Amino acid sequence: MTEKDFFKVTTLKSVLELIRTFSCVGQEVLPLGQSVGRILAQDISSDIDLPEFNRATMDGYAVRARSTFGASENLPALFTIAGSVEMGEVPTVSVKAGEAVRIATGGMLPDGADSVVMVEHAQALDEHTLEVFKSAAPLQHVMEVGEDLRKGEKVLSSGSIIRPQEIGVLAALGQTHVPVYRQPVVAIISSGDEIVPIDQAPGLSQLRDVNAHTLGGLIRLSGGIPLYLGIARDNLDELYNLCRRALAEADMVLISGGSSVGSRDFTLEVLQGLPDAEILVHGVSIRPGKPTILARSNKKAVWGLPGQVTSAMVVFHVMVRPALEKIGGRLEKELGKVREIPAVLSRNLASVQGREDYIRVRLVGQGEQLLAEPILGKSGLIHTMVKADGLIRIDRDSEGLDKGTPVNVILL
Amino acid sequence: MTEKDFFKVTTLKSVLELIRTFSCVGQEVLPLGQSVGRILAQDISSDIDLPEFNRATMDGYAVRARSTFGASENLPALFTIAGSVEMGEVPTVSVKAGEAVRIATGGMLPDGADSVVMVEHAQALDEHTLEVFKSAAPLQHVMEVGEDLRKGEKVLSSGSIIRPQEIGVLAALGQTHVPVYRQPVVAIISSGDEIVPIDQAPGLSQLRDVNAHTLGGLIRLSGGIPLYLGIARDNLDELYNLCRRALAEADMVLISGGSSVGSRDFTLEVLQGLPDAEILVHGVSIRPGKPTILARSNKKAVWGLPGQVTSAMVVFHVMVRPALEKIGGRLEKELGKVREIPAVLSRNLASVQGREDYIRVRLVGQGEQLLAEPILGKSGLIHTMVKADGLIRIDRDSEGLDKGTPVNVILL
Repeated sequence: MTEKDFFKVTTLKSVLELIRTFSCVGQEVLPLGQSVGRILAQDISSDIDLPEFNRATMDGYAVRARSTFGASENLPALFTIAGSVEMGEVPTVSVKAGEAVRIATGGMLPDGADSVVMVEHAQALDEHTLEVFKSAAPLQHVMEVGEDLRKGEKVLSSGSIIRPQEIGVLAALGQTHVPVYRQPVVAIISSGDEIVPIDQAPGLSQLRDVNAHTLGGLIRLSGGIPLYLGIARDNLDELYNLCRRALAEADMVLISGGSSVGSRDFTLEVLQGLPDAEILVHGVSIRPGKPTILARSNKKAVWGLPGQVTSAMVVFHVMVRPALEKIGGRLEKELGKVREIPAVLSRNLASVQGREDYIRVRLVGQGEQLLAEPILGKSGLIHTMVKADGLIRIDRDSEGLDKGTPVNVILL
Repeated sequence: MTEKDFFKVTTLKSVLELIRTFSCVGQEVLPLGQSVGRILAQDISSDIDLPEFNRATMDGYAVRARSTFGASENLPALFTIAGSVEMGEVPTVSVKAGEAVRIATGGMLPDGADSVVMVEHAQALDEHTLEVFKSAAPLQHVMEVGEDLRKGEKVLSSGSIIRPQEIGVLAALGQTHVPVYRQPVVAIISSGDEIVPIDQAPGLSQLRDVNAHTLGGLIRLSGGIPLYLGIARDNLDELYNLCRRALAEADMVLISGGSSVGSRDFTLEVLQGLPDAEILVHGVSIRPGKPTILARSNKKAVWGLPGQVTSAMVVFHVMVRPALEKIGGRLEKELGKVREIPAVLSRNLASVQGREDYIRVRLVGQGEQLLAEPILGKSGLIHTMVKADGLIRIDRDSEGLDKGTPVNVILL
């Protein structure tokens, strides 16, 4: 039995099912002002009606709608101005038939009024008399009690991302502090005898540790906190010890592996020896990214990533990011869904059946269309990633895509 | 002359030209690991060739391509295995005609070799003898010196956003620290007698300060740092003093204005009285957002925003965000360009010529299409923003959009 027989390649779909089996990190409570972009850890119900009073939504006059019926430019209805509503104060006047009270947007409707006539449709003849030129319907230019949020109603769901508008709802409910999922800590271990820290000048045949820093950026943009554990030389004990430390200090572990077959076997051997270890995936049917390994140890995900930085980035976007979002508390239906945008392929692309291909593209506006323009160049070149706006996917069962095909672009 | 005659409405296009006249904030230097998402403040040129040596991009054997010519499954070429290349070390062997040297992905090509034969296309007969089954072309599976980045070449531009791949390039160049633009500080002043801080229970007719917190979230997501200055009651001096403080401490000022005509005049009066003040915009031909004010004082932008939170959000997305990006150092061609995605309108929408309309939409996948589904409900309701994924724009010269029209969705 050769080494290749062990290489039972998993589909991306299966990997994405496996990542759902990892548990979420714990929770913490944050001041509202620091919670944007974080994941809500509890359902939020409204404990008030919003608004708590009938509010004017236009500047004008609070009236009984019925008193305006039939009013027109030619035959204005006449009203007695009974006073005005001060902002932030409960009106001291009430409105009877044929009376109008001045009110500004956001003001509280006085008793008796059910409608607001816009300034534009009225004219004060003197301090006490108003002409109205248009019929108003009941509740016109009025936001009713509870029309925005109703007391007892569930308004936000646990697992959703907190955007500015969710901040707005939480502020309206007086939530100065918010329960959120903690940001997952993701350990990064680089491995390989040829890798040197970025502050060192690499000797001839050596390379700076590009991958760890690139992965760190990806982790931050995916809501995690990177924990750099340094470089393990090609030495079983060194890698094993860094993995143990990573499992103790982090919620997920990335090994930015040596890129050769030997180095990968080496990572596999270390992963198999970790406490309570299970190799879930050893090879994925995508390109680039085939040599990816996923293991579980102490209930945590440990990834062995391809050594080429461009391949590692693709694997991060299509597998690691959804996994990170999953343990970070995101709703399952939203995993990996962010940052995909539709475009149209600019030229024919060939592919091989039986594996998913990921192709770097640049987005170019062309009239009302957005074109996805494949970027040429060898797969290992980082400058091609700098030129790229995103990735497109060619399905396993496809032999390629024709020019003009609609594609979804995963933004990089 | 009535008050309305002063209301010279500006087009959004003109506002977007005006925001380009504000200057950028200063710069700072950050550790590379903290720079993701920030704006690069200098052009970066490569001071090295990357790679600095010819690298193998596959596991296999380094050879002279010419020695493999004519090789096939039926007629393999025979090679002498002359040694192997260790990762991270300069090869001690060289390759002569008919010789092969073991090499792993990322290894440095030995002298004399110009090509790599993949493991899959070769078989070692014994320790010293290799069969090769396929012709290799010169430079096959080799990344040449300088093929990724060339010494002296400009690789990153000042004003571009630092994504993980830019981090990768900076790491490859050994840039442990990065010059970036400082994050603009944006002061937020709420105004209005009806507004109470969010930790207070609003009395009947009062409202919690939803806008300040919503704007704070928007500022953070746009690369700024919010500075909450609290609530100014409807009192000229109070608002004036807060504006002076804002201009001293921040790079831009947002006044989350009272929503009534009176309150807006009030804001205008205060803005006119600020040092070196110039009112640039008083009213914009968009809906919602018409009552927006933009002033310049001490060379800084001061915005008077509409009082309805939903309107303020729209104004932020279409005007304030690009302005914030501009002073934050973003390239002009990229201002406000992020986060727009194409979709197709799900139903007919009416509009009024002469102003731009912004409509909240939910995005719904339908087969390969992404549908933009307008969200109904009064404009002031914050729950409609929670349900929304984005905004679509109806042009000034349009009377509406038909179902099926391609639209760009500004993600919320």
